[in-house]
Amino acid sequence: MSGNTLGKLFCVTSFGESHGPAIGCVVDGCPPGMELSVEDIQRDLDRRKPGTSRHVTQRRETDTVEILSGVFEGKTTGTPIALLIRNEDQRSKDYNKIMDAFRPGHADYVYWQKYGIRDYRGGGRSSARETAVRVAAAAIAKKWLFMKYGVVIRGYMSQLGPIEIPFKQWKAVTQNAFFAANADVVPRLEEFMDKLRKSGDSVGAKIAVVAEGVPVGWGEPVYDRLDAEIAYAMMSINAVKGVEIGAGFAAVAQKGTEHSDEITPEGFLSNNAGGILGGISSGQDIVVNIAVKPTSSIRLARRSIDKAGNPVIVETHGRHDPCVGIRATPIAEAMLALVLMDHALRHRAQNAEVMCTTPKIPGKTAG
Amino acid sequence: MSGNTLGKLFCVTSFGESHGPAIGCVVDGCPPGMELSVEDIQRDLDRRKPGTSRHVTQRRETDTVEILSGVFEGKTTGTPIALLIRNEDQRSKDYNKIMDAFRPGHADYVYWQKYGIRDYRGGGRSSARETAVRVAAAAIAKKWLFMKYGVVIRGYMSQLGPIEIPFKQWKAVTQNAFFAANADVVPRLEEFMDKLRKSGDSVGAKIAVVAEGVPVGWGEPVYDRLDAEIAYAMMSINAVKGVEIGAGFAAVAQKGTEHSDEITPEGFLSNNAGGILGGISSGQDIVVNIAVKPTSSIRLARRSIDKAGNPVIVETHGRHDPCVGIRATPIAEAMLALVLMDHALRHRAQNAEVMCTTPKIPGKTAG
Amino acid sequence: MSGNTLGKLFCVTSFGESHGPAIGCVVDGCPPGMELSVEDIQRDLDRRKPGTSRHVTQRRETDTVEILSGVFEGKTTGTPIALLIRNEDQRSKDYNKIMDAFRPGHADYVYWQKYGIRDYRGGGRSSARETAVRVAAAAIAKKWLFMKYGVVIRGYMSQLGPIEIPFKQWKAVTQNAFFAANADVVPRLEEFMDKLRKSGDSVGAKIAVVAEGVPVGWGEPVYDRLDAEIAYAMMSINAVKGVEIGAGFAAVAQKGTEHSDEITPEGFLSNNAGGILGGISSGQDIVVNIAVKPTSSIRLARRSIDKAGNPVIVETHGRHDPCVGIRATPIAEAMLALVLMDHALRHRAQNAEVMCTTPKIPGKTAG
Amino acid sequence: MSGNTLGKLFCVTSFGESHGPAIGCVVDGCPPGMELSVEDIQRDLDRRKPGTSRHVTQRRETDTVEILSGVFEGKTTGTPIALLIRNEDQRSKDYNKIMDAFRPGHADYVYWQKYGIRDYRGGGRSSARETAVRVAAAAIAKKWLFMKYGVVIRGYMSQLGPIEIPFKQWKAVTQNAFFAANADVVPRLEEFMDKLRKSGDSVGAKIAVVAEGVPVGWGEPVYDRLDAEIAYAMMSINAVKGVEIGAGFAAVAQKGTEHSDEITPEGFLSNNAGGILGGISSGQDIVVNIAVKPTSSIRLARRSIDKAGNPVIVETHGRHDPCVGIRATPIAEAMLALVLMDHALRHRAQNAEVMCTTPKIPGKTAG
Repeated sequence: MSGNTLGKLFCVTSFGESHGPAIGCVVDGCPPGMELSVEDIQRDLDRRKPGTSRHVTQRRETDTVEILSGVFEGKTTGTPIALLIRNEDQRSKDYNKIMDAFRPGHADYVYWQKYGIRDYRGGGRSSARETAVRVAAAAIAKKWLFMKYGVVIRGYMSQLGPIEIPFKQWKAVTQNAFFAANADVVPRLEEFMDKLRKSGDSVGAKIAVVAEGVPVGWGEPVYDRLDAEIAYAMMSINAVKGVEIGAGFAAVAQKGTEHSDEITPEGFLSNNAGGILGGISSGQDIVVNIAVKPTSSIRLARRSIDKAGNPVIVETHGRHDPCVGIRATPIAEAMLALVLMDHALRHRAQNAEVMCTTPKIPGKTAG
Repeated sequence: MSGNTLGKLFCVTSFGESHGPAIGCVVDGCPPGMELSVEDIQRDLDRRKPGTSRHVTQRRETDTVEILSGVFEGKTTGTPIALLIRNEDQRSKDYNKIMDAFRPGHADYVYWQKYGIRDYRGGGRSSARETAVRVAAAAIAKKWLFMKYGVVIRGYMSQLGPIEIPFKQWKAVTQNAFFAANADVVPRLEEFMDKLRKSGDSVGAKIAVVAEGVPVGWGEPVYDRLDAEIAYAMMSINAVKGVEIGAGFAAVAQKGTEHSDEITPEGFLSNNAGGILGGISSGQDIVVNIAVKPTSSIRLARRSIDKAGNPVIVETHGRHDPCVGIRATPIAEAMLALVLMDHALRHRAQNAEVMCTTPKIPGKTAG
Repeated sequence: MSGNTLGKLFCVTSFGESHGPAIGCVVDGCPPGMELSVEDIQRDLDRRKPGTSRHVTQRRETDTVEILSGVFEGKTTGTPIALLIRNEDQRSKDYNKIMDAFRPGHADYVYWQKYGIRDYRGGGRSSARETAVRVAAAAIAKKWLFMKYGVVIRGYMSQLGPIEIPFKQWKAVTQNAFFAANADVVPRLEEFMDKLRKSGDSVGAKIAVVAEGVPVGWGEPVYDRLDAEIAYAMMSINAVKGVEIGAGFAAVAQKGTEHSDEITPEGFLSNNAGGILGGISSGQDIVVNIAVKPTSSIRLARRSIDKAGNPVIVETHGRHDPCVGIRATPIAEAMLALVLMDHALRHRAQNAEVMCTTPKIPGKTAG
Repeated sequence: MSGNTLGKLFCVTSFGESHGPAIGCVVDGCPPGMELSVEDIQRDLDRRKPGTSRHVTQRRETDTVEILSGVFEGKTTGTPIALLIRNEDQRSKDYNKIMDAFRPGHADYVYWQKYGIRDYRGGGRSSARETAVRVAAAAIAKKWLFMKYGVVIRGYMSQLGPIEIPFKQWKAVTQNAFFAANADVVPRLEEFMDKLRKSGDSVGAKIAVVAEGVPVGWGEPVYDRLDAEIAYAMMSINAVKGVEIGAGFAAVAQKGTEHSDEITPEGFLSNNAGGILGGISSGQDIVVNIAVKPTSSIRLARRSIDKAGNPVIVETHGRHDPCVGIRATPIAEAMLALVLMDHALRHRAQNAEVMCTTPKIPGKTAG
């Protein structure tokens, strides 16, 4: 209820502050009998972790995960899986300066007003460090969705600041520091980021995430629509300011004849719906776009106030991502996986015995 | 769990199909002692109801609400408030043609696959008619938020198809059929809609909603962030394909120095955050934009399949809104009200005794 | 959250006051495709309704239920089923006397302190009239549990005041006004009740409920144990003061060698566990006992205070059950059905693919 | 949803197996600003821990708790408090014998059928070891309830097997190994237990728990009644088979004139209700009794079957409590504290502004 648990049947309860002893989570609701090892989780954590290129923060967190429960002799038992990540490279003193000041664009001021107390070191609970536990928990969901239904969830950066990055091929995504699905644009991105870093400023980004292989029928019809839950999950990522499903804001200027996806026995002819109709998966690719705002922690001077209400100037030095969007791709994938996992379980609770003889319509894949 | 209940402390449980005996809801969690009459609710229902101009559907639903419980001698008692709206102007036979076919862009196909059975008349449960109960429930929330905190929630259409509608003044909104906050653009909108209606096609729209007077501190820090819950609520409205908070997708191309809102003792200097920082309200206006897709029910011929998987041509005659976005403004307001109400209650559960001596920062109002 | 919704996957949201326009509920989560008619529900309502013998209240409520949604062409659709029961025989003026006084043993005083307002007519929301909607909702669950798993849920009165009623045969239960499973005791019960009614006093009762045919594996291991949820459901019935599973309080004086049920390939040798081990159904009969307190509304003079804190004498005339336990049997069955239904759905969400080759142990049936 | 989270506003999510790396929990919803140290929690853990007398299990678990998050500079911050207890004295090989056999009275068989896999070492997740985390979490609730409302929660053993232990004084409870509130009976209890231990058998017990100082108004009126939630919480303790509120099963044979508690301006004249009317606290002491079954793990030979369905003889050696009821007192207190804490927060969410001028009725204290 205090907003640290995600999901209804596949529940992730997160804890931990950026500069406390540890972060972690309890994953409750994973079906029993699935093989699960630390490596399954570590692989995804490593995609998100800091320090992997010069374009992201240079903190040295190994983000080593420990499984505390719920796995026995290499298999899930159906009981809660607790994951623990000890914090390591903390430079809490970096934050003494902001102990009494509110960094613009950060949650400092609102935490202070809401709780009357805050762990100011590294943003405490509001730090993007918390997203590591989402990635860890989602690794379990991703594995189950793939093993059970063949669902594949992948993301890429589609825009960095002013630079659009047209999708070219999935293969490219793992071969550059930006999760760009297009090798040709990478040199421009590197140049842009190098300049930006020197300037001390930061920039936003746009991320696309796609889930292939989701069966028709997941999601609920009125409030817990699959698209609503995805919007919630994406908007719960630090720094996200916008979410689109399928055509998204482009739908505003579309005509009905352009937008609604015609159907033939051979399949849908387009995917403006982004794989979701009436809140329920259609069997087409689920396509989501998110807007990530520029990092709020920048070296350049910004006006603010302190706890007494006096004006101050805030310059954030520390070690920060000049574009938090760069590391957002695995996090966005994680959130999509968590929502789909939850709905996979929800679907079979109520609809286990539905047998529909109508043939499934083949989807038109995105990208 | 089957997705017909919204909210955690202020809970709305919705029921009813478009062409069944009735629609309605149970509102649980309203604080006791607030004056509440049928008129308080009917007023908002009338803003959403069909048939108010030639630009919307010509169905004749009076949408008359009955309060079945939870109000005693004109005041809420703290027990569940059940609201009932009997269905009236049903032309179920209009739908016989689509009994066996799946209308493109509609939930027909996914319902059929998910449930193995569907009430096809008027879209059944997936009909936008369900949004009437959201508006009814939200009228209670709106009243409480205003009486208790002075919160005012208002929306307007900011784009109709290709036509942008710059905000000019709130007063204009009630004086045209489009919820446009700008009288000058109305003639163009009318002309556009008249042509569109004749063509048999439909179009999308963009709606903005603003909540003024929300105190600092509402929302949760990690998963049930205020922005995440708003994104969920908005995306749960039929036909919505995108949600933005504050700067939204514009944040992608912004620099950190542009985006993050500086603070002075006199107030925030901008509102790119849209009134929410780290998932918690900042005391600034909460600003939300949504993209509404074009109506899927159009007269023009569309390809589809039937229940046996054979190709069919679907032309939807009946009486449909050529732009569902027109009636979306009161619905979007309703969803924002429901989220804020829930968080108002959640906030005081955990944070009732927080007394913060730091002065509240005045917000910069939007628009 | 305000406590008017029961269940997590099969959710019943109840509304209505004793003397308001109506009571009813929304049942969300019923699987689609089950045949359901008003008669299926009415049958159970009639078992609970007032006025069926001289031993219960003489109110004339027909308790006629209307299905407002969720059923199409005689089958459930998987969408919310709203049930409505209009109130009929209200003598609100009977209650004017207690408008300002708190009846001992009733919720009058605590409602007043909690809400600062209360619908005093007939107890308002705290009236046992609300249990009619539980019985109505549970009729759906009972039918599904029987159709799908062959589960049969039955109850009987095992003690009336000081008179123990040994179980003899199920058949007897429907043949007397007390739900006694033993025809021989009925004359004594009638005599006892006739005297009691004349005296103006009331008396308690003990009810047993048994579920046969529940498969092994329903329930959760730590907090949402099947026995915990049953205890919750039973204690939520007005007037219930105690709950036992299996041996119950007799287990206090038992030795381990007496209590724990031995197992042979032919089956369990006893059922002290009451069909639940570690919170999970064992495949044996689920056996529950509840204690129902004597009716608080009695003709005899009782001391109390009024809203100003002054001493008053309360005599409750109206038309009241001298033993609310008599009509409690169908309500207790209903609550057990609702819990089992919820756990049937929960079980298959997480454990759908578990295939266990160990043979199921035959249960030892109770009674 | 998989039953490892307790509470709605004060949420405890538990994890861990008896012989895995650790047990622990995440406590979400604690108000900010309360002083909290490891000692506050350790104190209660020590009351429950094994090895404190010859009458309980001789395992050597120090049950040392670590606070991983949610506390900053000695105060709660309003963010999740994660508690970790590493397992220490594990003799997993003790359990090899029961790897393939189902111990009578244990959850072995039902886990196996439900999950198709189980951590058999020490009962895994079904071990009473899990109750340590409940005690740890409840220490936080207890402290808050006392600091904020002066609520005091205490329990005692009222019966050990056949020996009733009349309440004499609270002071006695801490001065013997049995939590007996009566020093005179202790020699008999010791003698009884010494004999029992030698015999290899086990025995049940009855525990009473009392909460003093609970304000009028906590609880919900229909489903989440305070008594229903208490019944749930108590029945969720391993080995509990019965729960009573106030008069409990004695109410069956009571007349209305005996049972219902009369009220005078000086206070209630009795407390048969056990402090709860219509599901809501009345301001009187909350009085709960529970029945604890005899330990299932005994040295004496018991019949059972193995995974293949073949008959086996089970004798459980290891180190077991001959009466699990002895260590149940702090656990029962913990469960009552968790329920009250949750309802304290729930109450103020909806009812924060209720101001009732009717004087509060003084309670009659129990015992």
